[in-house]
This record gives sequence, C-alpha cells and structure tokens, in this order.
Amino acid sequence: MTKDLFEKIKNNRLFQAFVISAIILSAFLVGVSTYNIPSEALALIYFLDTFITVFFVIEICIRFFAEDKKLHFFKNGWNVFDSLIVIISIIPIGPNSSILVLRLLRIFRVLRLISAIPELKELIEALLKSIKRVFYVSLLLFIIIYLYASFGSILFGQSDPQRWGDLGISMITLVQVLTLSSWENVMLPMQEIFWWSWIYFYSFVAIGSITILNLIIAVLVDVITNQK
Amino acid sequence: MTKDLFEKIKNNRLFQAFVISAIILSAFLVGVSTYNIPSEALALIYFLDTFITVFFVIEICIRFFAEDKKLHFFKNGWNVFDSLIVIISIIPIGPNSSILVLRLLRIFRVLRLISAIPELKELIEALLKSIKRVFYVSLLLFIIIYLYASFGSILFGQSDPQRWGDLGISMITLVQVLTLSSWENVMLPMQEIFWWSWIYFYSFVAIGSITILNLIIAVLVDVITNQK
Amino acid sequence: MTKDLFEKIKNNRLFQAFVISAIILSAFLVGVSTYNIPSEALALIYFLDTFITVFFVIEICIRFFAEDKKLHFFKNGWNVFDSLIVIISIIPIGPNSSILVLRLLRIFRVLRLISAIPELKELIEALLKSIKRVFYVSLLLFIIIYLYASFGSILFGQSDPQRWGDLGISMITLVQVLTLSSWENVMLPMQEIFWWSWIYFYSFVAIGSITILNLIIAVLVDVITNQK
Amino acid sequence: MTKDLFEKIKNNRLFQAFVISAIILSAFLVGVSTYNIPSEALALIYFLDTFITVFFVIEICIRFFAEDKKLHFFKNGWNVFDSLIVIISIIPIGPNSSILVLRLLRIFRVLRLISAIPELKELIEALLKSIKRVFYVSLLLFIIIYLYASFGSILFGQSDPQRWGDLGISMITLVQVLTLSSWENVMLPMQEIFWWSWIYFYSFVAIGSITILNLIIAVLVDVITNQK
Repeated sequence: MTKDLFEKIKNNRLFQAFVISAIILSAFLVGVSTYNIPSEALALIYFLDTFITVFFVIEICIRFFAEDKKLHFFKNGWNVFDSLIVIISIIPIGPNSSILVLRLLRIFRVLRLISAIPELKELIEALLKSIKRVFYVSLLLFIIIYLYASFGSILFGQSDPQRWGDLGISMITLVQVLTLSSWENVMLPMQEIFWWSWIYFYSFVAIGSITILNLIIAVLVDVITNQK
Repeated sequence: MTKDLFEKIKNNRLFQAFVISAIILSAFLVGVSTYNIPSEALALIYFLDTFITVFFVIEICIRFFAEDKKLHFFKNGWNVFDSLIVIISIIPIGPNSSILVLRLLRIFRVLRLISAIPELKELIEALLKSIKRVFYVSLLLFIIIYLYASFGSILFGQSDPQRWGDLGISMITLVQVLTLSSWENVMLPMQEIFWWSWIYFYSFVAIGSITILNLIIAVLVDVITNQK
Repeated sequence: MTKDLFEKIKNNRLFQAFVISAIILSAFLVGVSTYNIPSEALALIYFLDTFITVFFVIEICIRFFAEDKKLHFFKNGWNVFDSLIVIISIIPIGPNSSILVLRLLRIFRVLRLISAIPELKELIEALLKSIKRVFYVSLLLFIIIYLYASFGSILFGQSDPQRWGDLGISMITLVQVLTLSSWENVMLPMQEIFWWSWIYFYSFVAIGSITILNLIIAVLVDVITNQK
Repeated sequence: MTKDLFEKIKNNRLFQAFVISAIILSAFLVGVSTYNIPSEALALIYFLDTFITVFFVIEICIRFFAEDKKLHFFKNGWNVFDSLIVIISIIPIGPNSSILVLRLLRIFRVLRLISAIPELKELIEALLKSIKRVFYVSLLLFIIIYLYASFGSILFGQSDPQRWGDLGISMITLVQVLTLSSWENVMLPMQEIFWWSWIYFYSFVAIGSITILNLIIAVLVDVITNQK
C-alpha cells in the first residue's frame, strides 16, 4: 500500500533531518537576501528558493497521504499551521504579485522550525494554554490605557501635541510609559506645567504594573496547577 | 409584579448586550472627541452622549428595582461603583460647570466595562485581595524613598538643583532611578563630583528592588495560599 | 513599682500614637528643611527638633525601664536599632560638629517608623531571612561583573576611555548595562569598532539576567518553604 | 604514603584559606593592572603573578595526587574547570604570544573563586540544571527575533538603514527593543512613516515578553519540582 510507504518516508529519520535542513536553509536564504549580494548569488537564491517551495509541497503531501483518515490530518493544529505556511508561499506566484509581498510571505517559513522541533511545539502548546488569562488581562490593560489616554489627551493635548495630540498618539505614549522606557522624558515636561501630573503618571505606572504582575502570577499559578 | 418584570429585563441577554454596546459606544465617543472633528459630527456626539447618559440612568434604576431588598443593592460594591459613575456624569449638567470637567467625568464611564464583564470583575476582585500587602510594601518603599530623597537633597542639592533642589524634586528623581529609566543620566554627573555617589545610588537601587521583589513574592504566596 | 508604671505608659495606646506622631513630625521637619524657608520657621523647626530629640530619649528610657531584665532589652534587635538612631542624633551636639553631618544624622530618625509599625517590622524580618541567599548571589554577580569589567577595560579601554578607562569605570558601566538602561548607547559605539562586541554584551546581559532570575526564584522558594 | 599527605594538605583549612587568598590576590592584580601604574609596581605585579601561576599549578597537582583513583579526578567537572583555567594561563608563556592575549587569559582565574566557595558551586550547579529549558526558550526567542528582523529589514530597511539595513543590524536593533531600552527611539521614527508600525513593534514586544515570562516560569516550576 502506498499509505505505508508514505508513512515510512514520513517517519524516516533521514527525511526528518532533511526537512529541518530545508527549513534552516530557507531561513538562511531569507536572511542572506537582506544583504547587498551580487546578481549571480541572487540567481542561486532564486533556484534554491524554488526548490524548497517544491520540496515543502511534496513533504506536506507525503504527510497528508501517510494519514489513515484524511480528515484527521486537519484536526491537528500543527498540520494546518504547516499547510497554511506552504500554501501562502505558493499562491502569489503570478505575474501581478509584487516582489515585496512575495518576499514577506516567504519569511513565514521560518516558523516551520517550531513545528519541526518537538520541544518547541511543547513550549508553544504550554503558552497557548494560558492564552485565555492573557486575553482578559490584556483587555483590562487596554481599558486602563484607554482611560488614561483619554484623560491625557484632554489634559496635556494642548501643551504637548506631539505626545498627547489625540487618543491614538496618547495611547502610544502611554505604552512607552508603561514599559518605563525613558518615561521621565514624557513626565518631566508636563510636571513643569502641571504640578499634579506626577499623580497621573505614578498612578498609571502603579496600576499598570500591578495588572501586569497579576498576569504573571495568574499564568504561574495556572502552570503549577496544571502540573499537579 | 413590576419587580419580576425588572428582573426579567435585567437578566435578558439582549439587554445585557445592549448595555455593553452602550458602554463601548460611550468609550468610543470619548476617544473620537479627542480628534479634530467637524461640528456636525460634534452635534451627533452630543446627541449620542445624552442618549447614553439617559440610558445608563434607566439601566441603574432597572437593576435597583429588580432587587428584592432595596438596601442589598448598595451592599454589592459593583452596584455602588456603577451608580457612582452614572451619578458623576449627570450631576454637573448645569450652565456653570466647565466643559473640561464635564468631559473628564464622562471618561470614567469606560470603567463600567469592567463591571459589565464577569471575567474582569474577578480579576479586579483578585487584585483587591492583595491590596493590604501592596499598601504596606508601598509604605515601606515610600519611607525608603523619603529617606534617600532627604539625603539626596542635602548632599546633591547644590550641585544639581534641577534634580535634587528640594525634597519633592528629589523624590521624583528617585522614582525615576527606581524604575531604572536612564538612571545613569542622574548618577554619572554626581559620580564625577563625589566619588562615593555610586554607593548612594547602588544601595538605593538594591534596597528598592529587593522591596519590590518582596511585594511580588508576597502577592504570589497570597494567591497560591488562597487557591488551596 | 516604677517598672509597672513604665510598662503601663509603654503599652498605652495614646503614648504609642504620640510616638508615631513624633516620628512623622520629625520626618516632616527633615523634609521641610530642604526647601527655602524663612528664618522664623527655621527657629520653630529648631525648637521642634530639640523637643523631638528629648522626647525620643525619654521614650527609649521608658521602654528600657519597662523591661523586666535590663539585659533582655538589647537582645531585641529593634530596641538596639531604635537606641542607635536616638544616640546617633544626640552625640554630635557640640560646637565643633558641622551642621551638615548633624542634619544627615537626623534623617535616620525616619527609619524609626519601621520599628513603630508592626506590619513593617514583619516585612523587614521576612526580608532579612533571605539575606544569606541574597549575599551569595550578589557575590556571584560581583564576580561576573568583575570578570567582564576586566575584559572590558582591556579590550575597549583605549577606544572609549570615558566608559572603559579602568576597572572602576568599567564596573559602573556594566552595572548600567545590567539594568538595561540605555545600554545600546554603551554597546553600539563599540559594535562599530569591533564586530564581536555584541557577543561580549549579549553574553554579559544573558548571564547577569539568569543570575538575578536565580536570586528571585531562590528567595521565592525560601518563602514558600518557610510558610509550610 | 604520599597520597595521605597530599590529602591532608588539601583538606587543611589553612591551605584552603591560602588558595582563596591567592585567587583574590590574582583578581586584585588583574584589576590593578587596568589603572595607570608606575613601572616599579608593574614589576611587583609581574612577580606576584608568576608566583600565583606557580602556586596554582602546585595546588592542582596536590589535589590530583590526593585523589584515590587518578581518573576520577577528571570526572568531577569542577576539577576539569580549575585545571583548564590553570593550563590556559601557563600555555602561552612564550616569546611569540602577544601580551594582550596573555592578560586576557589571566582574567579567567577570577572564576576559580566560584569553584573555591561551596555556596557558589551550588548556585552554579542549580543554574546548570535548568540549562536545557533555557536553551529551548532561547532557540524560540532566536526564531522570533530572526522572523521579525527579516520583516524589519525588508520593510524599514530603506527608511532607516542604520537600524534596519540588513538582517544582522535588524537583529541587534530588535534585541534592544526586546530589553525595552529606549525602544521608542526605534519605533517613533518608523511610526511617522508607516502608520502600522506600532503593530509590528507591539506584537514583537508582547510575543517576546511572553516567551521570556514562559522561561522564568518554567525554571521556577523546575526548581520547585526538584525540591520536593
């Protein structure tokens, strides 16, 4: 039966090593092409790129035909993940698609390294388990930033329009403040105009930090509880 | 009985979805009004704003009348929270209240999103449980900053009055140092004048960091203990 | 018996509240005197300061005489702590002692707030329990910084003497890098000269961060283990 | 038997203290030689350095001969560690080896302090236990940075070649962004050109932070599990 043959190929260690090599080569080509390279090398890159594209299609097909029930193939999230990445990088082969988009879509192939290494797959699966918590804390964080950005753009908007001009700019400024990156450059000019601005900034940093701390602790407790 | 009718409305999924939509619309209006908008749009915003204000009053009334014992309504912190936000945004409707204050008070409505989404309510309740610990560690942190700011303003006050001029300025400077945000810009000028200033700054950063670390661990242990 | 009288005073709630008020007033005076104040206020501050000094001496005496066995008084670390702070602030009252030193020594009185509030005392005692771990990890961190600073001053010393001139300067620079505060300003100029400097900086940041992470985890495990 | 004599010397407290003193002196000499020092002092340093080199060789020999079975000596990682450091610092004594390399290799002697203090040895051994986890999370982090750097150099390469010129420069820039060190200086110029660049930066910071958070939690859970 051909199914058995495909399964043998799929589970062959040499084949698996070859797949990982192809992914790494693909990532390497993406990296190399960001440098100024002579046109001969470009031709080689183009050739290798086409080869990898074809090989990836073949590899997905092998894995698909090696499956007992074809529908089960798409029940595994990682298969869908791999298929999508491969499809994305072949669809736009047409005369109209811009080269930029083509190059960008090829980059996603690097991600196949995650699905090819079991330890990384486990890591991502562990991360996904805590995604619900992360979502709600992010929502809370968003509400806090939205609230402070609304206040900020009304209170500081006219004094420093470059940082507090409208809600969008204010939110970008507040994300910077939340990461504590040179936030004194944001606060001190306002502090000179409004004596109370330290209350605005300190309360924001305190509430924001406690929310993020809450996220860390929640994820940690989740992981410990899951382990037991 | 009308109480049953109110309770039915209150627990109606459509009504709840409508409340959340109104809150989001209210938040959206606050955001939009920070941009330069044509006056026709302003009229629309004003109309929608009034509509939301009225709707929120009605909603609180429905929830109040749906309660069995009216006094129990105010025993639930979230009801008080919602009522306060709604009252705050209707009180200043008068010819004398400035538009700025009015706009600022409307922003608090965004917070109603927290009480409208059960997951966020839980998050906040979990945060509040550790508030006592946070208070005492914050007090300790305040004492440490106060102590160092007193030293700082006496020792560095004359060399760099913009950063160490008096206790207030020194405390703002030390909060910046504690967040490790470009703190070398604060320390290096002093280091050039006083060879021992690295002791001042390093001891402050070390003691401050350990205190904050203590806070994180205390909250974490609290959460784990509560879970068991 | 006078001992009983002293004990009654010591445990009197009003007396304790008065002690805390005196400490807060003392801290407030320290803070106020960093501002430009009229000379009349200075006289008042001087008077209050003397009053607090005398009161603190009396208070320590009361607590000392309230003790059953006088030697036990000094077995309690907090009593020694309080006594030292009080003694420090009365010794230098002499015509020769400079005003600066006097003012600096008075600041330490703020610390008495810690020993006056039981919750803060507990916090400090919890911190002290993990002091041994902190010491050894700090020693390890010091060795790492010393090692990298030696390399740094030899490798980069001639290219950027202001940051890498000798071992002392290099260590100060590396502490800045370890806190990730504008560390790209330290690294990028070196990166332009030596292509391998990213290895130096990244390995330092990685090893340093892992060591600090180890400290956090060690303290956390200590606290959890102690609790059980 | 001479083996017993060597073992006695090795376990002698005075001898051990002398070894630690020699290591500290060696570290001190490395530090001193980074300062401008008169040539007489240089001669003294050179003499002490040679003395320490000889002493370290003797010490390793004593420990080697004190071993029951000579092969077991190299089964202990710390013995190999110490031997390597000592060998490294004697091999290049030859007329052709540059002084710079010689000085650099001597610095590694500071590391012997770790193997000489049992508490630090334990710390390092605890760190090494979690090395496998650290490796895989670092690999994941590397893939994420590689992916974003590829996108970054294609998207921003022409607008800001100094930060996004090629893959290598982009990766260095992204490490800076990941450490949140003045990252607004990287993002804001791009934000002015491309309105969507906040998506690029925020998603990178979020994914990167969650990955690092995952590392911290994984190590923490490892340590807690090992303890039980």
